[in-house]
Amino acid sequence: MKRFEENRNFMKSGFMEDILSDQKKQLPQPPLQKPYDNDSEIIDLPEINREIISKKDIHNCIADRKSHREYTTEALTIDELSYLLWATQGVKEIRGDNYATVRPVASAGARHPFETYLAIQNVHGLKEGIYRYLSLEHKLLFLYEEKNIKDKITDGTLGQKFAGSAAVNFIWSCIPYRGEWRYDKRSHKVMLIDAGHVCHALYIACEVLGLGTCAIAAYDQNLMDKMIDVDGEDEFVIYMAPVSKI
Amino acid sequence: MKRFEENRNFMKSGFMEDILSDQKKQLPQPPLQKPYDNDSEIIDLPEINREIISKKDIHNCIADRKSHREYTTEALTIDELSYLLWATQGVKEIRGDNYATVRPVASAGARHPFETYLAIQNVHGLKEGIYRYLSLEHKLLFLYEEKNIKDKITDGTLGQKFAGSAAVNFIWSCIPYRGEWRYDKRSHKVMLIDAGHVCHALYIACEVLGLGTCAIAAYDQNLMDKMIDVDGEDEFVIYMAPVSKI
Repeated sequence: MKRFEENRNFMKSGFMEDILSDQKKQLPQPPLQKPYDNDSEIIDLPEINREIISKKDIHNCIADRKSHREYTTEALTIDELSYLLWATQGVKEIRGDNYATVRPVASAGARHPFETYLAIQNVHGLKEGIYRYLSLEHKLLFLYEEKNIKDKITDGTLGQKFAGSAAVNFIWSCIPYRGEWRYDKRSHKVMLIDAGHVCHALYIACEVLGLGTCAIAAYDQNLMDKMIDVDGEDEFVIYMAPVSKI
Repeated sequence: MKRFEENRNFMKSGFMEDILSDQKKQLPQPPLQKPYDNDSEIIDLPEINREIISKKDIHNCIADRKSHREYTTEALTIDELSYLLWATQGVKEIRGDNYATVRPVASAGARHPFETYLAIQNVHGLKEGIYRYLSLEHKLLFLYEEKNIKDKITDGTLGQKFAGSAAVNFIWSCIPYRGEWRYDKRSHKVMLIDAGHVCHALYIACEVLGLGTCAIAAYDQNLMDKMIDVDGEDEFVIYMAPVSKI
């Protein structure tokens, strides 16, 4: 498999080599969260509502995990959305002088190089549009109104209509410098692994709430980057998952 | 960040391009599990024992997930080990004519390109050594006896002594052709993400059993490949996690 040699090497450990990363050079650390304008529209998210957590035992949540591609048209509640955001990327603790965040998922060197965008189509109390999760504040940042999420997500996922039909699509972007700052060229492998941690956390959280999700890696990079308004270089979409009632 | 351009591009979606993969060429599919000699030493694993599952509610299992690097010297039971293996890579169902497996974790195209090796140091009833999980049979394949796991894992993880001290180390290898067969050069990104699914499943399973784990990406590729006796090309270590009582 000579033709895959380079890709395969990318998957291997680069940690035997001593690298002078930007962190070791004492260059400034990138912010823990992407900045935003002070005059933005911010929506409060409710605290965790334990009443929505199913009585299903944890073993069955693990055993029953599966990818759901058929959804009802029922809306998600803001309590449910709040829970999913917290369980995947919520901030439990900030360590040091804004050095690192501790979250319900692991991340190499606690870099957490992702932002969570939402294409919201059917959530009680929220207008249709594109939002970003402010993990440090546990709030939503409204980005822009979008009335045609259905077609745009279907096109953005290369024709996967079930994604276009979902109440909400989680769209995870990567800000690679957050990992590169610490791990240099070894960061890219571990940031991909980290994206997997986040998505499995979403699967489990959906089981807890009785919702359905399905990881999506087959998406159109340019269309999705455009949808969340990122440059595709210093920030780009890395993974997606629609969520709906089932 | 021109110097990281290639690595960053690796993290992006390649699914816009139509690729004639080996699957589309109707080339034979690789086996769902790495073959083994019929005269090998095989150890039965117990069925899931629900009595070992903590009464802790699922929300707290999600909320309390953290990386543990301090362990007691108490041995794991075979019931606990069996649970961890099932929750991360157990086979719930085989689809088609040995076409795909369904497991408690998601994998792109249900390829599940991993094998789970164990460096066992302190599990009741099992001699110290290197084993492989036979997910299709839910059994253990004994590979060889190893009395010096402590030092070898410490060296293999570039000096991370807590890993060397653990009752068991999960060592996940990747057999890349399982993904390449279906997704060609787009497979490598998604196989890394899949490794993240598996490891977060281990974190949650450890919370369920009251055990501690810590994901390890910083390992010595050659030492670890040698420890599980793989060639480092068609199969190589991709990720690790020690597990112990806490």
